[in-house]
Amino acid sequence: MRFHEETFEVESKKRLEVVDITERVRGVVGRSGVTRGLVNLWVPHTTACLSVNEHDEELWEDLLAVMVRLVPLEGEYRHNAKYRWAPREMNAHAHILSTLIKQGVSLPIAEGRMRLGTWQSILLIELDGPRVRRVDVTVMGE
Amino acid sequence: MRFHEETFEVESKKRLEVVDITERVRGVVGRSGVTRGLVNLWVPHTTACLSVNEHDEELWEDLLAVMVRLVPLEGEYRHNAKYRWAPREMNAHAHILSTLIKQGVSLPIAEGRMRLGTWQSILLIELDGPRVRRVDVTVMGE
Amino acid sequence: MRFHEETFEVESKKRLEVVDITERVRGVVGRSGVTRGLVNLWVPHTTACLSVNEHDEELWEDLLAVMVRLVPLEGEYRHNAKYRWAPREMNAHAHILSTLIKQGVSLPIAEGRMRLGTWQSILLIELDGPRVRRVDVTVMGE
Repeated sequence: MRFHEETFEVESKKRLEVVDITERVRGVVGRSGVTRGLVNLWVPHTTACLSVNEHDEELWEDLLAVMVRLVPLEGEYRHNAKYRWAPREMNAHAHILSTLIKQGVSLPIAEGRMRLGTWQSILLIELDGPRVRRVDVTVMGE
Repeated sequence: MRFHEETFEVESKKRLEVVDITERVRGVVGRSGVTRGLVNLWVPHTTACLSVNEHDEELWEDLLAVMVRLVPLEGEYRHNAKYRWAPREMNAHAHILSTLIKQGVSLPIAEGRMRLGTWQSILLIELDGPRVRRVDVTVMGE
Repeated sequence: MRFHEETFEVESKKRLEVVDITERVRGVVGRSGVTRGLVNLWVPHTTACLSVNEHDEELWEDLLAVMVRLVPLEGEYRHNAKYRWAPREMNAHAHILSTLIKQGVSLPIAEGRMRLGTWQSILLIELDGPRVRRVDVTVMGE
């Protein structure tokens, strides 16, 4: 049984942004030496999330547009009302979307590689940037 | 390789409610003796879910308000129409929100502790209470 | 420590469809010989997902109706505009819903069985069919 953990940082540049982290995760899985098992990804945040989807910048714009249509940035939120003195904390939309998009994902590894499909990339979704975000990668297997 | 399983119950008091279960999960992880690995949480229900988010009661009200705006309690649901004789089963909203919020989460453990971020608490989201809910905790690692 | 991997295919018949795959997953878990641990399910797609919910065809219709109300098939999507020459690629709705519904789930196994609740079935949700879909099942435990 092998365990391998690494953490890396992602610096977002915009309030809402999608960042492809597939290659960085692939690097961790490669260094782990695990040929079969699972890789768990976790962002220790409540206003950024993870998704697995196509690497297509137009699609990412569509995705963010739908997200803020469903959960508007400028809604009537009690969380925001409480923090009116701190504009940086007016981020209820990001917390709520985190509950929908989720902060973690576990992917299978076989023959030393993540079993990502042809169109699957691993995406960090920033919902309240710009910020420095952390991704914890835990590889477990043999 | 160690395995440790525990189940605990949570009693919700309202139809829609958020209950912080972080300390109870932390207790299970502590008793497991696992210093690195994963903890998997699972609620064996279809009308209650899990989320990781901030411990902020105003935010929880915002979250529940958005959820029932997106998927209203009193919608035109075929599932509810079928169960009109059983008001307790008029819960299509809760089933549908379960598919969005999800019933499980897997968190990394390092140095004997869950790698939760500063603002991350583990929340059970009741969508069709009051009921007694079960949380299955499985810790796997070394 | 045991690992067991199997892949099976699911053929969807409609554009939007829910297919119950519980029995097929149960078969894999049985063949794995794992009595306690985790089973990870993964669909290597970006327009089909997994959910755990009740086996109720009326509910499935409700679920799909809500999903396309929230993220319409015929929206103004940049992803679709780019692919106007390829009607088969007009599937932004399916990509976006994938980010909400997710392509993976990890379930606990105890006493050789998945710890599914009474009303929990494992569902593949097709969002852009008809297509042949793949489900990768990884069982890890002892």
